[in-house]
Amino acid sequence: MTSESAHRAIGVAVLGLGNVGSEVVRILREHSEDLEARVGAPLELRGVAVRRPGKDRGIPEELQTTDAESLVARDDVDLVVEVIGGMDLPRKLILSALNSGKSVVTANKALLADHTGELAEAAELHNVDLYFEAAVAGAIPVIRPLIQSLAGDRVNKVAGIVNGTTNFILSAMDETGADYAATLAEAGRLGYAEADPTADVEGYDAAAKAAILASIAFHTRVTAADVYREGISKITAADLTSARALDCTIKLLSICERITTPEGKERISARVYPALVPLEHPLASVNGAFNAVVVEAENAGRLMFYGQGAGGAPTASAVMGDLVMAARNKVNGGRGPRESKYAKLKIAPIGDIPTRYYVNMQVADKAGVLSAVAAEFSQHGVSISTVRQEGAGDGARLVVVTHVATDSALSETVEALSKLEFVTAVTSVLRLEGTEQ
Amino acid sequence: MTSESAHRAIGVAVLGLGNVGSEVVRILREHSEDLEARVGAPLELRGVAVRRPGKDRGIPEELQTTDAESLVARDDVDLVVEVIGGMDLPRKLILSALNSGKSVVTANKALLADHTGELAEAAELHNVDLYFEAAVAGAIPVIRPLIQSLAGDRVNKVAGIVNGTTNFILSAMDETGADYAATLAEAGRLGYAEADPTADVEGYDAAAKAAILASIAFHTRVTAADVYREGISKITAADLTSARALDCTIKLLSICERITTPEGKERISARVYPALVPLEHPLASVNGAFNAVVVEAENAGRLMFYGQGAGGAPTASAVMGDLVMAARNKVNGGRGPRESKYAKLKIAPIGDIPTRYYVNMQVADKAGVLSAVAAEFSQHGVSISTVRQEGAGDGARLVVVTHVATDSALSETVEALSKLEFVTAVTSVLRLEGTEQ
Repeated sequence: MTSESAHRAIGVAVLGLGNVGSEVVRILREHSEDLEARVGAPLELRGVAVRRPGKDRGIPEELQTTDAESLVARDDVDLVVEVIGGMDLPRKLILSALNSGKSVVTANKALLADHTGELAEAAELHNVDLYFEAAVAGAIPVIRPLIQSLAGDRVNKVAGIVNGTTNFILSAMDETGADYAATLAEAGRLGYAEADPTADVEGYDAAAKAAILASIAFHTRVTAADVYREGISKITAADLTSARALDCTIKLLSICERITTPEGKERISARVYPALVPLEHPLASVNGAFNAVVVEAENAGRLMFYGQGAGGAPTASAVMGDLVMAARNKVNGGRGPRESKYAKLKIAPIGDIPTRYYVNMQVADKAGVLSAVAAEFSQHGVSISTVRQEGAGDGARLVVVTHVATDSALSETVEALSKLEFVTAVTSVLRLEGTEQ
Repeated sequence: MTSESAHRAIGVAVLGLGNVGSEVVRILREHSEDLEARVGAPLELRGVAVRRPGKDRGIPEELQTTDAESLVARDDVDLVVEVIGGMDLPRKLILSALNSGKSVVTANKALLADHTGELAEAAELHNVDLYFEAAVAGAIPVIRPLIQSLAGDRVNKVAGIVNGTTNFILSAMDETGADYAATLAEAGRLGYAEADPTADVEGYDAAAKAAILASIAFHTRVTAADVYREGISKITAADLTSARALDCTIKLLSICERITTPEGKERISARVYPALVPLEHPLASVNGAFNAVVVEAENAGRLMFYGQGAGGAPTASAVMGDLVMAARNKVNGGRGPRESKYAKLKIAPIGDIPTRYYVNMQVADKAGVLSAVAAEFSQHGVSISTVRQEGAGDGARLVVVTHVATDSALSETVEALSKLEFVTAVTSVLRLEGTEQ
């Protein structure tokens, strides 16, 4: 290295020594020369907050502490990396760091989705950085491109596969034909699903990420509570088979969209649900634990970002990018671009959101069924694109794909359908994304 | 808009009113409120340098000037957008802007590939920004993710389709089976190729972009002269047919790679050539005028960025992102992260670069040909992966795909092959990228 750093060292505290924390510490130690050249000053690890210190943690014991608060408060700590996870403790520690003039890098999407407002204000007040590239889509640069690269454009839609667990399960169901329960169990055995998979399979994790993406894309504060959410636990092997027959697959999507109401008002929508995606759509071929985010902007057109959405090293890559940028800002005396919330757009209720639908019904195998079903759709103003009859006798099914309709019109249609004599059950209602009309 | 800008207006000069310049001016005027909220101050267009002023240029005549130098020198101009293209004039204007403390946004890849050093030093000296996201891959954020998001990682390879003209031609040849000359003519008629297509089809444009990408990825100054370059003008319809038979297509790739020599020395390589790419590789399905860049980094793994690589509005989106960032830095008194060149890695000569090869030969339809050919490969230490015999009699061909070998070993093999009695001609030698071994 030829760089001579004139600047004093930048002190770093890492909170948490799990998958991501261990990788961050490894990179800090293995690549110190490169990092110093890029920052313009040495990055020095002051300490790591751990719950269980010990000789077996892979770092010298004198760097370990159970007292995260004192570590954050140290005078020689300039930057704090929060990779503990959870809510109350990291919130308190991050606020304490920001309020004492320290920049913070965090991967904590749940915390950000609920508390970005409070955290961003503290960062603003103390003129420090709050970076969180690792909170959405792991190693894939998405936050920074949205905040910076698209700062002169108008983002109309962000649609992504941002949860690896559900994508692994849906990809495996599509490939093997196995049902949801068996595939979830297999994902658990392989380490792709946690012991309590609720946050992933019910879409809470994807909803937190949707809130973060929508906030940034639309310059408006959006929290997890603003995000409409459905998980994948009701998806059946039969749904995937029907999807294939329609040249589609099923993906759990996080969608953020700019909507114009029939009255011409500008609204935004943030929503998470499993949807049929045409096989030729770029998101359809994103399989297993990979993530991808498609951004549609007025001038840029459609962009796609693809890569590893989880895992220690990929997530640490994103954390380290933020860390180097925050450290450069410390060295140069400035701070980086931040998210903004000036637009203050209102959230459209899910009932107003127009999409296409796939409706799968168990029906009596009789003449007149199709016309009765079609009449219900028509009466509620929902236009049918295709109808497909599957099976016969007791196993007879009708698979309807609609043109664009609002969620409320579709819900009313489904309610009316389930009251029809010929319709034994409406077994699945899923949205169809990634097509026109 | 609720934002109240306390800061004085930021004055912008736009040099050039072609496809990109017109779109930049349109966005500045149509989205002034949004842009002001994001910058923290109004962006005011002070003037546009045009070669041919007139009432028909879409902007008020008082904003047009033929005197670019005086426009750049105006006291109320803080930021200069250079979208003239060319070399000497923009170089002079950009230097003059930087030297008078103005930040510069440019899309000029040819200029940057040759003169980044000089321009970056002027920006450094005067503490202003020199941004150029639009110079590579149009609307796709690639420069900023490489400089910032991957600042804490170690990039090992960047491989991209970054020239729309050649990608359009190769995609069309693959689809229609037409030959190069007819497809080039068609591309010209459709506006995808210029009257003089040399810069595109001979790989000069892709090489300039490779130099920029390699500089940033490896923290080392790389110029266009350092980039090994082959164009697509010798690609035949037969090559595309043979590629299909190998489950591949042909793409013009810009590749930047970190190499370890047999002696254990770290080197880098930047090169542009048409290569066979397996159909299942993500770059194989990037068709028409689209661009895509794959980045492989030690911790992030493989990332892909995809979108529109050219055109007025997409390129203007990238320019505007840079413009907003540079303007924010003016408002906040800092400057953004810049490229660095501390690593000073040496360029490996093309002869040392290991890749796989596809060799297509016209051969005599006789017994013993295959063994004679295989012997030549073996004698030069080039290991064969597959051999395929096509046609018979006078049209007999041998298509050999090798394992990884250095360019020099392969060149020696080809020279020896062409001296063989049985080999009428070695008609194509192409590299195979995107596979292991």
